[in-house]
Amino acid sequence: MSRCKSCEAPAVIDVRRHNAAFCADCFLRHCREQTRRAIEQHSMIAAGERVLVAISGGKDSLALWDILLDLGYDADGVYLALGIGGYSTTSQRYAQDYADRKGAKLHVVDIPAEHGFGIPEAARATKRVPCSACGLSKRHLLNRAALDGGYDVVATGHNLDDEAAVLLGNVLQWQVDYLARQRPALPATDGFARRVKPLVRLAERETAAYCVLRRIDYIIEECPMAAGNRHLRHKETLNDLEERTPGAKATFYVQFLERMLPVLEGVATEERALVGTCSRCGSPSSAEVCAFCKMVERVV
Amino acid sequence: MSRCKSCEAPAVIDVRRHNAAFCADCFLRHCREQTRRAIEQHSMIAAGERVLVAISGGKDSLALWDILLDLGYDADGVYLALGIGGYSTTSQRYAQDYADRKGAKLHVVDIPAEHGFGIPEAARATKRVPCSACGLSKRHLLNRAALDGGYDVVATGHNLDDEAAVLLGNVLQWQVDYLARQRPALPATDGFARRVKPLVRLAERETAAYCVLRRIDYIIEECPMAAGNRHLRHKETLNDLEERTPGAKATFYVQFLERMLPVLEGVATEERALVGTCSRCGSPSSAEVCAFCKMVERVV
Repeated sequence: MSRCKSCEAPAVIDVRRHNAAFCADCFLRHCREQTRRAIEQHSMIAAGERVLVAISGGKDSLALWDILLDLGYDADGVYLALGIGGYSTTSQRYAQDYADRKGAKLHVVDIPAEHGFGIPEAARATKRVPCSACGLSKRHLLNRAALDGGYDVVATGHNLDDEAAVLLGNVLQWQVDYLARQRPALPATDGFARRVKPLVRLAERETAAYCVLRRIDYIIEECPMAAGNRHLRHKETLNDLEERTPGAKATFYVQFLERMLPVLEGVATEERALVGTCSRCGSPSSAEVCAFCKMVERVV
Repeated sequence: MSRCKSCEAPAVIDVRRHNAAFCADCFLRHCREQTRRAIEQHSMIAAGERVLVAISGGKDSLALWDILLDLGYDADGVYLALGIGGYSTTSQRYAQDYADRKGAKLHVVDIPAEHGFGIPEAARATKRVPCSACGLSKRHLLNRAALDGGYDVVATGHNLDDEAAVLLGNVLQWQVDYLARQRPALPATDGFARRVKPLVRLAERETAAYCVLRRIDYIIEECPMAAGNRHLRHKETLNDLEERTPGAKATFYVQFLERMLPVLEGVATEERALVGTCSRCGSPSSAEVCAFCKMVERVV
C-alpha cells in the first residue's frame, strides 16, 4: 500500500500528475493549498473582499464554497434555479442542505419565477444548444446577483478538467477571442464584477474526493441537457491523453496560461474596447442589446 | 452507389470533409487542384523557379512529385538514405523506380557514406528520440542539397494529417515558438532555401488513393523507428475527432493558419532575429554551433 507523501500514513488517494499519494487529512490540506495558491497566483480575492460563490449543487461548487469558508473568506452562495425539472429540484436541495449545515447564506435566483422561462424553453426558442443558453443566462444572472448584493467578486467551481476541455474546444476551432478571454481571473470592468475560478489547480477527481472525505453530499448526475455535448467529448479526449501521459492535461492548461496568454494580450485589449452597454438592462454588451435580453425577448 | 460530384460517373472514393465523392479522373483532378490552390494561396513556387522535392519513397512525397511534374513545375527529387536497414533499402528502390519511370532526376544523399553514421546511431549517441535526430538531419541536409544544387525551394510531402498532428503536439505543450514557425511556406532567409508543403490541403487517405489510382508504387510500412511515437498518437486522437465530426481536422489546421498565425507574427519576428550562422558549417543557427554539427560531433 502506498504512503502519504506528507506524513507517511497509509494513503487513501493518489494524484498521478503530482506523482503523489495522500492520507485523508493531507489530501484535504492539498486541496486547500492548491486553491490558496491559485487565488494568490492570479490575485483572485483581496483581503476583506466579499465573495459570491456560484453554487450548482455539484461537487465542484460545494467543494469551492467549503474551501473558501475554511480559508476564512467572507463567501456567500448563489443558486440559479434553471427550470430543468427534477434535476433542478434535486440540485437545489443539495445546495440548500450544505448552506443550512454551515449556517451560510445562500441566495436563490429562480429563473422561471423571475423571467417566465427555464433553460429548456430558452434553448428551444433561440435554437441554441441548451448549454449555450444556460451559460449565457448564468453569466448574466450571476453578475447581476453580484452587483445587486454588493459583492466584489464572483467565484465559480470550474476545475482543471473543465478549463482544459474548454481550452481544447477553443483551440480546435481557433476561437482566438475566446482564447484571449480564457483566464482564471477576469478583472472587474464597468458593469462586470471580477470573475474567478479558484479550483483551476484541482482535477475533477480531486474535487469529488474532497466532497466524499468532507462528507459533503452533492448531485452526482450530470445535467440531463448536457448529455453527449462537445464539452464532455473534449473531456474524454483529454482523459485519453492523460491516461497515456500523466500530467498532459495540466501541462496543456498551465502552459497556455504561461506561454500563450501573454501573446494574446493584444487581442484581449481589442476585445475589451468593443464592450459597451446594453440599451435594455445596462449590462456590458458588445451589441446594442445584450444576448440575454435578446433571448428573453425571443422566449417570452 | 454514389456518383462523382463533378461528372456524375460512378464514384470510387468519397472525401467526407468535403461531403463529396469522385470518380478516378475527377479525384486525380481534385488532388492536383488542391495542390495548385495551396501553392497559389501561400505563394509557394513562382513561375520558372527550380524545385527540389524531398522524396522518402512513401505515398506523400511520390504523389507530390507526380503532381508537381503534372502541373508543369521544374521539379527534381532528392532522397536521403538514412541508414535504417531494410527500410531504407526498400524505400530508396521505390524512389528510384519512380524517377526512372518518369525520366526525372533524383539526387541521393547517402548519410552513412557521407557522414559515417545512420539515424539509429545518431539517436543513440545524442540520446534523442530517433524521429528528432531524423528530423534535424533532414532539415539540415535537404537545405544543403537545395543550396548546393541551386534550387529556389524545397518541397516536402507533409499532408493535412501530418500538419494537424504536429499542430496538436505543439498546442498540447504550447510551444509558442514552434507554433509561430508552423507555416505551409517558410520564406527563404540567409542560408535557408524557401520550404513549402504543397499537400497541406490533402488528407493522408487522399495521397494514398492518388498513388493507387496513378499506379505509383510506394513503401507502405511506417518507418520502424517511428512506431508508437507521439506524432502517430496525435494522429489517432485527431482521427477520433474526425470520426465524430467530419471536417474537424481541416478546421483545426485551416483556422490556425487564418486566425492564429497572424497573432503569432510578433513571436516569429523575434525568433528570426535570433538566427545567426553556425561557426562550423555556415548554416543558419540560433546557437554558435548548429544542432546538426553538434550531433555529428557526438556520434562520430
